[in-house]
Amino acid sequence: MTKREALDSLEQVAGNGLLHRRLFLRGGAGALAGATLLSARAAPPETPSTMKTPGTPMRAYGERSPREASVQRAVGATPGAAGTGSSRTPLESLEGIITPSSLHFERHHNGVPDIDPEQHQVLIHGLVERPLIFSMAALARYPMVSRIQFLECSGNSAGNNNAEAPQQTAGGIHGLVSCSDWAGVPLAVLLDEAGVKPEGKWLLAEGADAAGMSRSVPMAKAMDDAILALYQNGERIRPEQGYPVRLFLPGYEGNMNVKWLRRIKVTAEPTMTKDETSKYSDLQPNGRSLLFTFPMEVKSVITSPSGMQNMQGPGLYQVSGVAWSGFGRIRRVEVSADGGKTFAEAALDGPVLPQALTRFRMPWRWDGAPSVLMSRAVDETGAVQPTRAALIATRGTAFRYHYNAIQSWSVAQGGAVSNFYV
Amino acid sequence: MTKREALDSLEQVAGNGLLHRRLFLRGGAGALAGATLLSARAAPPETPSTMKTPGTPMRAYGERSPREASVQRAVGATPGAAGTGSSRTPLESLEGIITPSSLHFERHHNGVPDIDPEQHQVLIHGLVERPLIFSMAALARYPMVSRIQFLECSGNSAGNNNAEAPQQTAGGIHGLVSCSDWAGVPLAVLLDEAGVKPEGKWLLAEGADAAGMSRSVPMAKAMDDAILALYQNGERIRPEQGYPVRLFLPGYEGNMNVKWLRRIKVTAEPTMTKDETSKYSDLQPNGRSLLFTFPMEVKSVITSPSGMQNMQGPGLYQVSGVAWSGFGRIRRVEVSADGGKTFAEAALDGPVLPQALTRFRMPWRWDGAPSVLMSRAVDETGAVQPTRAALIATRGTAFRYHYNAIQSWSVAQGGAVSNFYV
Repeated sequence: MTKREALDSLEQVAGNGLLHRRLFLRGGAGALAGATLLSARAAPPETPSTMKTPGTPMRAYGERSPREASVQRAVGATPGAAGTGSSRTPLESLEGIITPSSLHFERHHNGVPDIDPEQHQVLIHGLVERPLIFSMAALARYPMVSRIQFLECSGNSAGNNNAEAPQQTAGGIHGLVSCSDWAGVPLAVLLDEAGVKPEGKWLLAEGADAAGMSRSVPMAKAMDDAILALYQNGERIRPEQGYPVRLFLPGYEGNMNVKWLRRIKVTAEPTMTKDETSKYSDLQPNGRSLLFTFPMEVKSVITSPSGMQNMQGPGLYQVSGVAWSGFGRIRRVEVSADGGKTFAEAALDGPVLPQALTRFRMPWRWDGAPSVLMSRAVDETGAVQPTRAALIATRGTAFRYHYNAIQSWSVAQGGAVSNFYV
Repeated sequence: MTKREALDSLEQVAGNGLLHRRLFLRGGAGALAGATLLSARAAPPETPSTMKTPGTPMRAYGERSPREASVQRAVGATPGAAGTGSSRTPLESLEGIITPSSLHFERHHNGVPDIDPEQHQVLIHGLVERPLIFSMAALARYPMVSRIQFLECSGNSAGNNNAEAPQQTAGGIHGLVSCSDWAGVPLAVLLDEAGVKPEGKWLLAEGADAAGMSRSVPMAKAMDDAILALYQNGERIRPEQGYPVRLFLPGYEGNMNVKWLRRIKVTAEPTMTKDETSKYSDLQPNGRSLLFTFPMEVKSVITSPSGMQNMQGPGLYQVSGVAWSGFGRIRRVEVSADGGKTFAEAALDGPVLPQALTRFRMPWRWDGAPSVLMSRAVDETGAVQPTRAALIATRGTAFRYHYNAIQSWSVAQGGAVSNFYV
């Protein structure tokens, strides 16, 4: 059997050329590769000049190749307020599940403060037996825990709730999500030491930035899996992520993960700060605002191909992307190449971690005709990522937070990929 | 019951103050923290200046805080050959399991080549049906896989085989190990496409550096889990790690993971290159050299506290470190505070991934007296990290590769931590 015959014998698992994920296994993948003629038969390359001259020396702290300098965050600042706005992770240029710290998304409300860790302190007060102050050196003595988890701004993907589909890359639309190895001290340990009074059911977390960012957090979450994060991807947390310490609430909307944390006040009720009333609340179709929407819902996005890219002609492709849920692990991701008429299950890179980005992959034989690619994630609670129409039917078109509908990419004749509302 | 009483009631699980790892759970940890008086009771801190002035704007590509600039790799170059040598990851300054790419260890034999990915190609030839050439653009079309795995130079920790214990940090002695999220194309896919002939049992992998680094790899490993890695921690692989493409062989000694990969030749026998005969082989007590020692054995090191550090006075500490094995997952790590007389099991941060760094933690109440800390890892095959004496009894004192004995840190009266041979 030739490679071509092997390939032709593989079943199509959903419409318009989606092939079974077992193609990624040995043999199957060989067939896929062979049929695409991605590789060339040719004479061996000549000995490159790099083999004839010694290279550059070791460095104490490395940098990426200058040849990759075009891979950047998309910065969007408020006019006249350079420190207010966001920058987005270029998801379409990344692989795996870890986001390089230099490309982790940013969202600041009055810029990045420069904090001296020798001077910085965290206060725990309010409804506690013993108000306590923690220096950074003291925090470093406490037991820590490390976990690989995503962080997503609740305003991520809101552009897709506009009437017109924004024409941007995957990262330009959905890049307010990143994933890191976070390490820090369980907040429960510190709250136990301070001694939370029985009436303490909430806490106020306040940052040391010029926005005085402050949010209310339910005590149950604080006592469950919240940490005071000191490290990000091995090294001390980056300035844009709250150096020297941030609150980290796995799965909860990014804004609550207060950066540059300086104060935790235990309260009986939520404080109703500006950041949870005038902002980070959503106008509903009934005219009332939705407050305190904490976990980020199940979501996925195809990052390859991405809007603003072009296919390289008909043939076999690996469709790849990331999925995540604030409610736990991703159970499965389904991909469609015919605009949602049919779906088939994608392969997931293991292990699948709770509240972490999960990489999915799907083989696709594009025949060159106009197509619409979609991904639909399902999390371990059984929650299914909704269509855009279903989300809008429930929540209207005025909301700007917790937009988690399916992303559709249109692939035009000729190969141009663009954002498309089904 | 007071915090102090709660603490006193906790059992000591091994000699000289090792406490049960459940102290890291809620309540227990609170008791631990309370008793150490790490925190201060004081008036709330004044509003910091950072809350009164807008911070700095977003950036397209971030950097760490300049206040962390002292965290560096320890660079050791051969005199007169700046590109030959190694730099070591500062393990004692890191947390979690991911190594920041800027601090990933380096080991070069003739410097870091500057390779244009538009020009670079990988050739597969030798005992194959179809010699093939892969451009980087072609490789990017193939199915990929991503995994979080360690990489360790087989010469790591060799200083501990010297007669005198080297006085350095944990990273200075053991920092030729790092852990990343690696993504790339399974080598089996490419070999299947080329069509390996039945007599092809090995392959030669050659780099495009000025050392012409080349190593022989068994076909079974190539077909099992080898990848051509294109990405490291999300972004394209760093120049020091083989940009634009390296061979990655999970669990195998670092040198075989050929960087700047340009050629794979399928052979019937190992090629016996300079890099696997005159180097990366070990003189045994019987006068013969040991060749082709592939997987890195089970190992661990306490990174906090570390040699060259000082304890901050008697009290409660979190002893923490990393463990790993080229043979799979870490099953458990045991810690001793009495020089190996007694051990108790440490807590592991989950999930424990195969062939990845695994973070372990152990609560220790240091009473201020001279002590010796040790960690001993056991992997899922049941292999136990040996003592230094046992390793030397088997392998002698002439070998420089695959040193995996237990690291012992002496804690002196006064708190100075140093490398110590039990």
